[in-house]
Amino acid sequence: MDITTLTPLFNFDEMAGAAQNSNGLTGRDILSVAQFDREMLSYIFARGREMREMVQRVGGVDMLKGYVLACLFYEPSTRTSSSFIAAMERLGGSVIPITSGVKFSSVSKGETLADTVRTLEQYADAIVLRHPEIGAAQKAADYASVPVLNAGDGAGEHPTQALLDLFTIREELGRVDGLNVAMVGDLRYGRTVHSLTKLLLRYDVSLRFVSPEILRLPLNIMNKVIDASVDVRETHEVADVIENADVLYVTRVQKERFSDLAQYEGVKDHYVITPDLMEKAKNKMVVMHPLPRVGEIHYSVDNDPRAAYFRQVKNGMFIRMALLAAVLGKA
Amino acid sequence: MDITTLTPLFNFDEMAGAAQNSNGLTGRDILSVAQFDREMLSYIFARGREMREMVQRVGGVDMLKGYVLACLFYEPSTRTSSSFIAAMERLGGSVIPITSGVKFSSVSKGETLADTVRTLEQYADAIVLRHPEIGAAQKAADYASVPVLNAGDGAGEHPTQALLDLFTIREELGRVDGLNVAMVGDLRYGRTVHSLTKLLLRYDVSLRFVSPEILRLPLNIMNKVIDASVDVRETHEVADVIENADVLYVTRVQKERFSDLAQYEGVKDHYVITPDLMEKAKNKMVVMHPLPRVGEIHYSVDNDPRAAYFRQVKNGMFIRMALLAAVLGKA
Amino acid sequence: MDITTLTPLFNFDEMAGAAQNSNGLTGRDILSVAQFDREMLSYIFARGREMREMVQRVGGVDMLKGYVLACLFYEPSTRTSSSFIAAMERLGGSVIPITSGVKFSSVSKGETLADTVRTLEQYADAIVLRHPEIGAAQKAADYASVPVLNAGDGAGEHPTQALLDLFTIREELGRVDGLNVAMVGDLRYGRTVHSLTKLLLRYDVSLRFVSPEILRLPLNIMNKVIDASVDVRETHEVADVIENADVLYVTRVQKERFSDLAQYEGVKDHYVITPDLMEKAKNKMVVMHPLPRVGEIHYSVDNDPRAAYFRQVKNGMFIRMALLAAVLGKA
Repeated sequence: MDITTLTPLFNFDEMAGAAQNSNGLTGRDILSVAQFDREMLSYIFARGREMREMVQRVGGVDMLKGYVLACLFYEPSTRTSSSFIAAMERLGGSVIPITSGVKFSSVSKGETLADTVRTLEQYADAIVLRHPEIGAAQKAADYASVPVLNAGDGAGEHPTQALLDLFTIREELGRVDGLNVAMVGDLRYGRTVHSLTKLLLRYDVSLRFVSPEILRLPLNIMNKVIDASVDVRETHEVADVIENADVLYVTRVQKERFSDLAQYEGVKDHYVITPDLMEKAKNKMVVMHPLPRVGEIHYSVDNDPRAAYFRQVKNGMFIRMALLAAVLGKA
Repeated sequence: MDITTLTPLFNFDEMAGAAQNSNGLTGRDILSVAQFDREMLSYIFARGREMREMVQRVGGVDMLKGYVLACLFYEPSTRTSSSFIAAMERLGGSVIPITSGVKFSSVSKGETLADTVRTLEQYADAIVLRHPEIGAAQKAADYASVPVLNAGDGAGEHPTQALLDLFTIREELGRVDGLNVAMVGDLRYGRTVHSLTKLLLRYDVSLRFVSPEILRLPLNIMNKVIDASVDVRETHEVADVIENADVLYVTRVQKERFSDLAQYEGVKDHYVITPDLMEKAKNKMVVMHPLPRVGEIHYSVDNDPRAAYFRQVKNGMFIRMALLAAVLGKA
Repeated sequence: MDITTLTPLFNFDEMAGAAQNSNGLTGRDILSVAQFDREMLSYIFARGREMREMVQRVGGVDMLKGYVLACLFYEPSTRTSSSFIAAMERLGGSVIPITSGVKFSSVSKGETLADTVRTLEQYADAIVLRHPEIGAAQKAADYASVPVLNAGDGAGEHPTQALLDLFTIREELGRVDGLNVAMVGDLRYGRTVHSLTKLLLRYDVSLRFVSPEILRLPLNIMNKVIDASVDVRETHEVADVIENADVLYVTRVQKERFSDLAQYEGVKDHYVITPDLMEKAKNKMVVMHPLPRVGEIHYSVDNDPRAAYFRQVKNGMFIRMALLAAVLGKA
């Protein structure tokens, strides 16, 4: 093989230019929603829109041809891993799928996360990490020289989920400023609710938090909301918010959270979205859910044009395509 | 990225033409052998032959470049999943391999099959589904807007297996009409036997069913055979059919099917294919098996040119390539 | 599809020429280090260097486009499977990843390794096999007509590991002849130590074996060393070899090997590489480890430029790229 005659898969000058156009994301880790100000969000969403248009028109491109992504999942998450895999493949890149075997493998037998990550970066150009422990993604990023994308670290962050949630609101309703966003269900433990709330505080929104008493938003998040001086109310009933909501972001109320099952039985139906309830909602609004759902949105709501949760799933692929292209220097 | 300057991965006019040439399969689900009449079978087999020639000559092409296939296996089946993966890859497409992790993942934690399928179709252009329950593939297809290919739904159907079986008979012997086909072993529970039998009834064949008494062909299949007025006989001994058989389709007689083990011990050797037995067979005939085998065909038969079971495996890849190309509109 | 108008993915004449240039490896199995004489090692290392240069410059190429590699792992090994997957993908080929599901699957339910391999070769152009039993790779190769690459067969061989170890020594220090190589830790059960030792005997080296008494090099390997008339010494203390070592090849001393735990506690710290110990070592030397490590090299040694173990991991990908290209006839 005469290396001098190879057609380069990318042009270095062009890449340098691209890096300037990646809004500073080239080579960066994606660890937390705290990284994303409004300008950066606008940039990511513009790229997400380009990805959607590209997929609709041609399915896939060669933008990341020759690049390899390691998907390292210490706990299985078919939805998230499939989204990243499809994103990388539609950009022409390849994947090392470590999506179910980690716990059986020598990699996890006593090896530190730091060593595992420094091993995988020898093979791959970026690493997607799902890990059950808070802070795992930051730790991985501390050791890796390639970009690390946090795909969920326990009760910590899941930034790409929050980005796709916000992107969905923006795409479905044309704007974020001025919207009334109601979060419903388990607001205490719901990681997606916390991250999306943080992002929404960068906009001029009204927030409504609807939950059972024992699943109210934690203090630390609520204090951030208060500090941001946005219009905010808490309530126990979806009925209180349904008429004015532009966005109904629904999460699951898990039986396991209640020590008193009678209490659970007493409240659970207050947080189920039904066609009857939807009749009271605006004509132009959206129902969202991070999925999987287990009964908290009636299946008969699925055909309502306001049911956006599957479009939300698709937006996840576009946002991850945008992020992968950006951190790998392809603007 | 300026979307207007992208070279499309496919040409829409050409695709429209291809759709006309895909014999009506573009966008269709592949759920049951009942979908395939003789004309459709001829079409699929012609395409399968083209795929074989292409693989032999160049290994792979870019026909499905930019397409993504989700392989969703609720129960592991290395043979079938590997066959679909290789088929998609040799056509230039990409795969989301969900072949072992489903049962551990949140996708299966209470989420309905309908929701899982509607999630995956956001990422993928087609879905291959293996599921332990009868009717699962039809249910998935009811919800998915992308093509669903049934890779086995419990005791239900496994249509791509039946197609590759029939294709193998056609390719090995040059025709199907006029052949004497003997099915051997577990005819009661053998899903592959039932599906292949249904397909064979579209041709002018003689059928011989060889099994222990308790593993005879079920009533519903036998009645279909009788209604088709084909030449048919049942027997307990391979020796009764070996001399006239053009096809010996062997399946495993599982010890677990017998409540009386003495009965099993008494009959099991009647259904084992040995070199001695092969001496009585025609010079031009084939031995087939859906695999895996566990002793029911002697390993010493493998070198017999009439042993077609590994060629049969390869035909599975060609048939799946033909089906993927057809349902994705690439004729 | 008009097959005559397809652009071949490879040119047969060119391939014939390549085969002549693959140093006789085209179509060959990679089973044991015994296959590799000095000339062959030089050839593989030259190809490995080309692969490194290619990856650094362009990430990936289309050399193996249209080829499919089956990665069949009967026991999980994320490090090795990821390395082979990345190697195949960076050469433009595709992978069937069977890296965690084998034990659950019908493939392993009573099916012989021979049948599994003869099934996979219908789909794939080469097979990488990891298996817990000695001799499994040879057995697979006996049945497969496509190249089989041994990725570890129990206490048997793991030739690609030995090749990447030797390649690392060569690349880090510029030569192999004349070096003083010290092996440290579990020399009795350490498969990598045995294989690397065999390869080193093809060169003019000095060998130092450092281990607890019960983990000394086995007789059969030691006799080979003696027969080769190389300069060799055994010792219990790393301190005895650190000053003169050009290579310190460290392996783990596992607690499980000791029936007397007091004995383990007494010796374990003798085989841990610390910054203090490194101060006594030459300025130009390397510390290597097959990984994973569990404490036997202090993490504070990682920043020492002589710590070569992560570069060693990367060399594994280059060597596997070189081998895949060679056995598939792409020189």
